[in-house]
Formats: sequence, structure tokens, C-alpha cells
Amino acid sequence: MEPKSLVEAEKTNGHKTELKIRQLEIADHAKGFIELLGQLSQCPSLSQSEFEARFADLVALGDDHHIAVVEDPTSGQIVATGSIFIEKKFLRSCSSVGHIEDVVVDKATRGTHLGQRIVNYLVDHAKAAGCYKVILDCTPELKVFYEKCGFVEKNVQMALYF
Amino acid sequence: MEPKSLVEAEKTNGHKTELKIRQLEIADHAKGFIELLGQLSQCPSLSQSEFEARFADLVALGDDHHIAVVEDPTSGQIVATGSIFIEKKFLRSCSSVGHIEDVVVDKATRGTHLGQRIVNYLVDHAKAAGCYKVILDCTPELKVFYEKCGFVEKNVQMALYF
Repeated sequence: MEPKSLVEAEKTNGHKTELKIRQLEIADHAKGFIELLGQLSQCPSLSQSEFEARFADLVALGDDHHIAVVEDPTSGQIVATGSIFIEKKFLRSCSSVGHIEDVVVDKATRGTHLGQRIVNYLVDHAKAAGCYKVILDCTPELKVFYEKCGFVEKNVQMALYF
Repeated sequence: MEPKSLVEAEKTNGHKTELKIRQLEIADHAKGFIELLGQLSQCPSLSQSEFEARFADLVALGDDHHIAVVEDPTSGQIVATGSIFIEKKFLRSCSSVGHIEDVVVDKATRGTHLGQRIVNYLVDHAKAAGCYKVILDCTPELKVFYEKCGFVEKNVQMALYF
């Protein structure tokens, strides 16, 4: 699943470090994963047991739900993340659609193409799962970013809040 | 889960019939469910075993995936459908989001508010599941329909086809 480009050496603070993309682990609760999500939307801190309970919900979905993270080996903190879930349909001979959600790169790490690499990684996951397309919703300001990742504007997202 | 309004009597061909919304059943394979989806997107016919295999995939998700259908009691055919899946997140104290997909009403039955009732039913399902919002993607032409259902335009949907 992991393209060679994702493990290429990158220079950080003058030292060569490998910024790998990998799947979320329980240990990431202590590595700022929830705080990073807080840069995207409301994300109050979770107790260890709350984190583990939700982690277990998602692990139970197997390859149909995947959260990718990037850990900075220098700081030991999670600096980028994105998730995908695979929706199984009856349409198109029981095909599937990948839904990308919750892509965020730590403010201090932006501009290093980590976001694009996370999205490419999630797209590869959907392709390997046999999806016929991947979709996501974004603000108009992020359109250009996702176009660079190979996406095209398709429709309008509507929302109803409770 | 089923609001009273969904089981109200409606006049069809001069006779009072109850157009109920209910969950998809295996028997709906023989009642035109796949052909109805074909009015929305490419949906080649499925063998009984193919249908049952995908049905089992979705049933395994429990309340996190729900396909609503309306059967016309006169013709015995499925005349409307819509689906929702519940995405579990870490955001907002491990909250959830409802994703509405594949809403379609048979051409011959349009104009009878079945689409709006299906959407309301799916929204109620999401609310009962504790979601903080429900989202969906639609063409610009369908914006007005979803606004009548209580939705507001939120973002841009981007897609990448394989």
C-alpha cells in the first residue's frame, strides 16, 4: 500500500529524517493526534479509554476505514492526518466509493507537501479496495489544493446540523 | 424510528393505500430495487447470490448503514429509495456524521413528496444515531429540493474517478 515516494528522505532542521505515512495506532493518543484534529474542527481532549473505545469501533471496520498519520520523528508528534472510509453500494455491479475525511496538516509543517502525500496515500487505499471513485467535500479555498491531487469539482455539498 | 406522517394514508388510483417507508429486504431484489437505482446511475442487474452477498455486507454494519425503500402495494414494486451510513469520528468528542446517498424516486411516482419523506426518514435515523450533522452531495439542480428538506449549501464536492 505504501508508495516508495512516501518514505523518501526529507530534510528537516538540517537533518535527514524519514517522514513516513502509516496507519493510526493507539499510542498516537499521546502524540498529539487529537490536538491536531483540533486545528480542523472542534475536538475536545479524550481520556485514554474514550480514545481506545472509538479506536476499537474503527478497527472493527477493517480495511473499510483507515486513518493515515505522519509522525515527526524529531518531536514524536503527529503532524498530519487524513481518513478514508469505503462505502459499499449496489450500484455499478456492487461497486464501492471512497470517502476522504478530516485531512489536516499541522500549521508549523504546512508547505512541505505532506497534505498532498496524505491524500495520494488515501486515494491509493481506495484504488486497492476496488473503488470506482473517491470523493470529498472542501471549502472553495481548498479546491486548488485538491485539483493538484487529481480531483475535479463535481457537485454541491449540502448539510443539515442538529 | 418511523414518524407517524410516513404511514399516513395516501390516495393512489382512487384507492386508499399506505405508502410506508421501511428498510430494504432481500425480497426487494425481485421488486425492481436494482432497476430503480438504474434511474440514478449505472446499475446492471445482479444475480440473487450477488444481491444477497452485498446485502449481507451491509446488514453486518447494523444501524450504521440503513437503506430505506417504499413499496407500491398495488404494483408490488419499489418506487423510492435512499440510504444513509453513519461515519464515526474522533472529532467533537467521538461524534458521528450521517451521509445520505443514492436517493431516487421512480419517474412515474415523482411529484408525490416521496423523495422528501425518504430524506426526512434518513435524517431521523441519523438524529437517533446521535449524529451532529447529516451531509450529502447533489447537483446544483437539486439544491432547492434539499433546501425544502432543511439542508443548506455548505461546501464543494470534489471527485477523482479511476
